[in-house]
Amino acid sequence: MSDVLELTCNLIRRRSVTPEDAGCLALIGERLARAGFRVEHLRYGEVDNFWATHGLDNEPGAGPTLAFLGHVDVVPSGPEAAWHSPPFEPTIRDGLLYGRGAADMKGSVAAMVVALERFVAAQPDHRGRVGLLLTSDEEGPTNLDGVRRVAEHFRATGERIDWCVVGEPSSKETLGDLIRVGRRGSLSAALAVRGVQGHVAYPEKALNPIHAFAPALAELADERWDEGNADFPPTSFQVSNLNAGTGANNVIPGALSALINFRYGTASTAAELRARTEAILHKHGLDHALDWNLSGEPFLTPPGGVLRETVVAVCRDLCGVDPEQSTGGGTSDGRFIAPLGVEVVELGPVNASIHKVDECVALDALEQLPAVYRAVCERLLG
Amino acid sequence: MSDVLELTCNLIRRRSVTPEDAGCLALIGERLARAGFRVEHLRYGEVDNFWATHGLDNEPGAGPTLAFLGHVDVVPSGPEAAWHSPPFEPTIRDGLLYGRGAADMKGSVAAMVVALERFVAAQPDHRGRVGLLLTSDEEGPTNLDGVRRVAEHFRATGERIDWCVVGEPSSKETLGDLIRVGRRGSLSAALAVRGVQGHVAYPEKALNPIHAFAPALAELADERWDEGNADFPPTSFQVSNLNAGTGANNVIPGALSALINFRYGTASTAAELRARTEAILHKHGLDHALDWNLSGEPFLTPPGGVLRETVVAVCRDLCGVDPEQSTGGGTSDGRFIAPLGVEVVELGPVNASIHKVDECVALDALEQLPAVYRAVCERLLG
Repeated sequence: MSDVLELTCNLIRRRSVTPEDAGCLALIGERLARAGFRVEHLRYGEVDNFWATHGLDNEPGAGPTLAFLGHVDVVPSGPEAAWHSPPFEPTIRDGLLYGRGAADMKGSVAAMVVALERFVAAQPDHRGRVGLLLTSDEEGPTNLDGVRRVAEHFRATGERIDWCVVGEPSSKETLGDLIRVGRRGSLSAALAVRGVQGHVAYPEKALNPIHAFAPALAELADERWDEGNADFPPTSFQVSNLNAGTGANNVIPGALSALINFRYGTASTAAELRARTEAILHKHGLDHALDWNLSGEPFLTPPGGVLRETVVAVCRDLCGVDPEQSTGGGTSDGRFIAPLGVEVVELGPVNASIHKVDECVALDALEQLPAVYRAVCERLLG
Repeated sequence: MSDVLELTCNLIRRRSVTPEDAGCLALIGERLARAGFRVEHLRYGEVDNFWATHGLDNEPGAGPTLAFLGHVDVVPSGPEAAWHSPPFEPTIRDGLLYGRGAADMKGSVAAMVVALERFVAAQPDHRGRVGLLLTSDEEGPTNLDGVRRVAEHFRATGERIDWCVVGEPSSKETLGDLIRVGRRGSLSAALAVRGVQGHVAYPEKALNPIHAFAPALAELADERWDEGNADFPPTSFQVSNLNAGTGANNVIPGALSALINFRYGTASTAAELRARTEAILHKHGLDHALDWNLSGEPFLTPPGGVLRETVVAVCRDLCGVDPEQSTGGGTSDGRFIAPLGVEVVELGPVNASIHKVDECVALDALEQLPAVYRAVCERLLG
């Protein structure tokens, strides 16, 4: 059994459902320490994170820093009986390794560890620094104590990173056919529309917030927020939840609540989207309140940057594919690192099975991944 | 203590929350039997109803039948601590009798009983028949086993009624200032709109039923269904409940549900309203299902009818007011009796406190009410 496969299996066996790391971080930290890495543990609340580095100290003129970024936590398995093999028992069938986290992203984490061990063994005096940042709070609903907090710490202490490779499963059909060079931002709000409760037989004595909101809702749903740009698709607006009513059919409700979400690129700003939403609600004269939450600004690593061009070249040379360079999909921990002035690119295995039953990673891709990550190290720091 | 006040208090003490009659019907049935009435008990499911009549048998040529209609069930009191005096302990303060059901409608029922006793005692050989129909299933959500079932029984057995006075609290400020000469119909539907669930980051792979429904909702809420007519206000449309969403803000819901309700007069039919609703939903291409429920057709006792003119004259002569003749408000059990070809008029005390804490009826109105009902008997059957 290869080194990367054995480590991936050992990680899958650890039931590290967010925010538990279930021993994954200790296992990896010990390996990297043996390989000569300095390992700094960063514990926030219930969450363990660590930052392991190898090479020159973090001082001006010490050369560039390349960081790999990953998470060892996984989403719950759901009913284990729905799986063809137990989700926390790594199982190989037909060239695929099955288990929760196989693709998202214990396979990537194992490949990063193996790549880093081999790189520093072969080139102990590489230029600059190479590092691995791991968290166990990426899959939860808030991610308050993971890379968000680590990035605050880095900002406060002057920790400097130039390039960051995130191991999120980015590929569509084969390893390296798609890399993420940015992500959209996510802006949410809880909307409350106030009306006046009453009996349906006396609508003139009530104010139905459903009726009051209807034309504004239609306008919001129909709005073209922007046209997108070369880097990002047009901004997307969705009402994810809408609730009003007492359950009884003879009562006009007194209030309506909704949750809304924008996924937006660099063609709009969060401030613009907020202002335009408020303007539409005001135009329709709604008595309302909005509670906004900006969970992540968009980020973009533009073409021509050293990291992006290096990763594209590695995909072409090692995987034999010309990768699609995308800013689509959801959010990732890259959104916390990019604002530090870091070039961020995401590259990992095929994502078709993530968060589902029978999550799996292709064995051939898993075996190839350490060489891919190591090549990035060699081309940037060799 | 007057006869009507004592009986009202005795009824309020009985906790006859729908569908319980808590002994109210037995109490009244015994009194009317002693007064020479034939009492027919009509029990359906959990619900007691009775039909008490006095006079000639129900045969062709036997003369007209005047029926009084009431209910002894009441809505729940809510938290008793919120009342200034216990809801099921009749209490007099400042010229008002407090208690659950004082106005809706144990005061009216007591006045009907006293009026009927006095009328048949004074005129034992009155023409035609006089009767009292009582139920304990008027305030519940479905009214399946109350007057709805009694009306089916009357239709099946050929029971004939010419005029019906309903004791619902109709008055606004003083007894007799408003009578109901009809009621709007009530047409409801449960609407389900189907979409395709997905992640908010990938709206192109989902179909948000909230967004799909928005323009149809705006059009439904803005629609002018009819202009009403001399007898009824314009049709009213309300969405009483609207629900979609999983609770999570990153999931586009797969379905939306709504409850809708029409209150309509004779300017539209239920079939027309259904067809126009469906047409609007189809126009917007919605994948939807509608489950309709017609809980009552509108009814109208037109001007010039014997009962309506008699009740108006009694209000003028005994209460000293020219009553507003209205078809407004919610529904009443009159909707089940009117389709039998019966002229229906509703007359009862002021309704400002009904269904609220500290429900009450004015003592002077309560004392006046037996004479009002008795006058209707005398003018129609004397």
